[in-house]
This record gives sequence, structure tokens and C-alpha cells, in this order.
Amino acid sequence: MKIDVIPLGTASAVPTDERHLSALAVERKGQVLLFDCGEGTQYRLREAGLSWARIEAIFVTHLHGDHCYGLPGLLSTMELQQRADPVTLVLPPGGPAMLRAVPGATPARLSFPVHVVEADAAGTLGTVYETDEIAVEARRLDHREVFAMGFRVAERTRPGRFDPERARALGVPEGPAFGRLQNGCPVTTPDGTTVRPGQVLGPPRPGVVAAYVTDTRPCAGGRALAEEADLLYHDATFADDHAARADETGHSTARQAATVAREAGATRLLLGHLSARYPDPAPQEREARSVFPAAEVAEELRRYELDPREKEPDPVGPADES
Amino acid sequence: MKIDVIPLGTASAVPTDERHLSALAVERKGQVLLFDCGEGTQYRLREAGLSWARIEAIFVTHLHGDHCYGLPGLLSTMELQQRADPVTLVLPPGGPAMLRAVPGATPARLSFPVHVVEADAAGTLGTVYETDEIAVEARRLDHREVFAMGFRVAERTRPGRFDPERARALGVPEGPAFGRLQNGCPVTTPDGTTVRPGQVLGPPRPGVVAAYVTDTRPCAGGRALAEEADLLYHDATFADDHAARADETGHSTARQAATVAREAGATRLLLGHLSARYPDPAPQEREARSVFPAAEVAEELRRYELDPREKEPDPVGPADES
Repeated sequence: MKIDVIPLGTASAVPTDERHLSALAVERKGQVLLFDCGEGTQYRLREAGLSWARIEAIFVTHLHGDHCYGLPGLLSTMELQQRADPVTLVLPPGGPAMLRAVPGATPARLSFPVHVVEADAAGTLGTVYETDEIAVEARRLDHREVFAMGFRVAERTRPGRFDPERARALGVPEGPAFGRLQNGCPVTTPDGTTVRPGQVLGPPRPGVVAAYVTDTRPCAGGRALAEEADLLYHDATFADDHAARADETGHSTARQAATVAREAGATRLLLGHLSARYPDPAPQEREARSVFPAAEVAEELRRYELDPREKEPDPVGPADES
Repeated sequence: MKIDVIPLGTASAVPTDERHLSALAVERKGQVLLFDCGEGTQYRLREAGLSWARIEAIFVTHLHGDHCYGLPGLLSTMELQQRADPVTLVLPPGGPAMLRAVPGATPARLSFPVHVVEADAAGTLGTVYETDEIAVEARRLDHREVFAMGFRVAERTRPGRFDPERARALGVPEGPAFGRLQNGCPVTTPDGTTVRPGQVLGPPRPGVVAAYVTDTRPCAGGRALAEEADLLYHDATFADDHAARADETGHSTARQAATVAREAGATRLLLGHLSARYPDPAPQEREARSVFPAAEVAEELRRYELDPREKEPDPVGPADES
């Protein structure tokens, strides 16, 4: 299923005329997952043509204002829009307490169900949200002394493509038997032979993977989230000229982000959380591309399309030729 | 001194494509007073060409999110901009506690001085901020059970215009004596006669007055703030068709806002806090103008200029002809 990744805010701590505070939307089948919610995100969602009502889960990396100050406003707007559907909030430690202290944003008092997942500061994180078709995993990042986590959205692998010609050739009658095979169950044909799914299904089809890794120095957690990702959005706050500053403040340079992408085998890298000190991020892009050619500065409100069909193995034939 | 009133956000609780959450700037001599700070205000200030560094005081009417959720972000941006100048925050009861609970927005931990004035829920409010040249008065409004206050910015009345010809004719030597008269002190001329300021100064020159009255039903506090105001920005959330809803929710109709303006003898009325249910606020404007012709729907980022010279009495001659 096609996924669109839409950067809504790619500035670092202070907004500029071109860049807004951190937020990124992942749209799939009309539903939206929102990563970070800097101030102004409810406006950016509108400008991106994404309905507040379609947000099913919000994931906040850490409690620096530029990543979460838009959450109270978005929740209260959802309420004012008479939302009934539930929303899941995956928050850093202390996130729920902050919301409770903000009049009008207390999850328990909102008129729609809010399922809050508070990350365990000490624990390993793992899967923090899942549906039948996707799973979101969280891992600790390295953002100085501040708790920060990154996220990886992965579609579940789907069974291989079903080959109806092949099935008919093996004597499988059209109808429910086709369905059973596609659901991974063997069937017995009228002449008594057993046909296994592997004989009529292509190889399993991996889903798309997007990773959101900011704010952080380059770190193991970020690399793990980025593993074979189709698209990695990574902290690229600084260019090489401020590498020391990056380390000091718990951020990355664009080159470091590119190195993470290359080491993780990602397909594409979006450079984000760009410092306002660079009116033109071209140096960051250049430095990143010297390490990882498929790096680009994230463009706000642009839809980066991830299509799982591009990952499908060639339909050489059923998974196992009997 | 010329004052510019600049509506930054004129929507009611939910932003629309055209209207942003509540905020209004008053610029005088390059310094900015900010009234309300809905989410996104720090962006709106930029778009209005108003520097964050020039904000000397922020006045929040009440703790509904659409009026205050932008405050944490603005304060943290001021800090990130290495602000050193102090800022005054005039907040409703509970305002300081809310800020303290939001990581990164705790006034005491900001790197610049923050003088917090917390309104007394029970008390009468009065002057909440003043300089040599202006005073800001607050009064309770009527916004259902929620504490809300409105504000009146008034320039101090200045002495009348000095008439140098007149002074010379009365034998006053040029130099310090002219200055003393302009500062309201009598002088003795070389031939021993006493010249009083009133003989060489025109009538006192009233300063401009702007009033910010939202969220509220029409009420005595709002009328008092609007008294003879040059410009009144008033809650006009609804048109007549939803008058009952206005009362129920603690708001006003445009007609009611106009009635307040007329009764208070205001010069001009800006209709604000406009409900998203009206894609076109023309009905509200029409209804308001039927009561108060100088009513108009507030236009965001437009500079409404208030010039005290327009209020100056005709220079008929010194205040008291001796």
C-alpha cells in the first residue's frame, strides 16, 4: 500500500520564513500518523491537505518545545471538531504530566478516547503502536541528557502475489479455495491432491519502511531504526563547519546523517531539523551526498511517495517450485 | 505618537485557512505590546514584520488554548534568540502555574528577566502595566464561568503644543525657560513678570487609546475599556443568527460588539474572534454597521494606524488667554 511521507516542519529550534517547527506526517490509506508536533503543526496539517480527523496516532520524540508545543492546540482543536474516534499518543517520560498541566489539553478530559503510551525512561522501547497492517517501533536516541526516541514505521510483510493460472493448472477450483491459499492455508483439490500456498504464491512482499530519527547525535538506536528503510528522515542540524557544536548540543551534521543512512542500507535520506544559521542548506546537502548520494534536504509539504511494489521481488515464479 | 494596531489572529477557537488563533500586536516607537498569544503567534509576528526582540509585554486574556498556547513557544524562541531584555507577562489566575508545568517555558528558568503579573481572580484589576508614556488597564469580562480580562492601552495625555511666538511676545528668553514652560513650570522673565505654562501651551493633547475586549458577552467591563477608544477590537464571534449561542458560550454577536462601541463612544470598531462557521463574515459586518457605521471585520496583518494628532484640539490658542 502506497505511503506518503510529508515533512510539515523541518526547522530546528527556531522557525524561519521557510521552515516550521518539527513535525512529519505519514499518510496511508487516508489515515495519518504524526511524528512530533511543534507549535503550528495544526496549521501545517491543514496546509498539507491532511485532515485533523484522520490522525490516528501522534508520536513525540522528546519534550523540547519545538517538538511538542503544538500538541495541546491540536488536541483541543480535535475536541472542538467533535472528534469521536480514539487517538493514541506515544509520549516521552513526563509528556502526560505536561499535558495534564495545560488547561484544555488534559487527555482524560477530552471528549474522545485518548490512549496514552508513556515511554519508560529506563526501558528498551520496541513496538509502541501497531495495527493489522503496520507496526511502529521506538528506540532511544542520543540527545545530550534529554530523553529522546526515534520511530520506525513498517508495513507488515504481505504474502506473495497469488498466481491464479498456476492454481487452476494444479486443479484448484476458483472460489473459496483461492482465498484459503492466499491466506496461507493449503487446500485439497477435487482429485485429492494437496496444494500448498508456496506453490501458487510469489515470494512474500515486504512493506515499506520509513524512519524518523531526530533529535540526536548519530547513534545505534538511529541506525537500527533506519535499517533497510525506504526513507529515513534524520537530524541534520549542522554542516561540517559546526560538527563540534552538533556533538555539544546532541545533534548531527548532514554528513553524519548520511553515514547512518549508508550504514543502515536505507534507500533515501531526508535531511531535517535544519539550523536557522544556514539560510541556504546547500552545503549540508552537498556534504551528505558525498557520503550517500540519495540524500536531499527535506522539502516541507512535499509528498515523498513510498510504493511497496518497487520493493517486490521479480515475479519469477511461485516461492517454491514443486 | 503614532500607534499601529495589528491583528495577528482573529479566528475563534479553531483556525481556518484565512484566520489564525487569537493575538493582536500594538506597536509604538518600535516596541510591541502583545495581546493574547494563540498557537502560531510567533510565526504571525514574523509575518507581520514584528521582531520577537521588540516585545516588551504580553497580556493574556484567559487560559483557553486559542489565546495562550503560543506563549511557551514564543518565550522559548525569545530565549533561543539570546534575549537579555526583560519582558512582562500579565496572566490570568493559573497562568504562571501552567507555564511552570511546560518544560522549557518556566519563567524563572528563562535566561532573560520575566516579570509576571498574575491577575487576582477576585480583585478589581486596574493598571497592570505602565511606562512613562503609556498605561495598560485590565478589567474583568464575562466569558461564562471562565476568568477573562480585557485590556485598554492608553497613551498618557501630553501637555499642549508650545507656542514659541507667544512666549517671545511675553518676554520669555529662548533656551532653558522654553523647556521649563513645556514641562509645565512657570518662569519669570527678565523684567520680573511671571509667565504660566497655560499662557504659551495649547490645550493638553490626549494620547491614543486602543482596547482589546475578547472573549466576552457584552459587559460593563468591556464598555469601560472601550470608553472613547480610538480603536476597539471586540469579540464578534457570531452573527445575529446565533445570538443565543453567543450568550450560551460567553461570546458576543457583531451587533452586540457594535452596541458596546457606540455606547462607549469609540471611534472605530474591529470585529474579531470570528467563528469558523461563517466562511464569509459579511453578515456580521453588515449587522454591526447597522448600529455603528465605523465597524469592520478585522483584517489580519493589516496595520491600523492611530495618530494622536487627529485628536488634537484645534490650535485656537493657548489654554488660557491671560
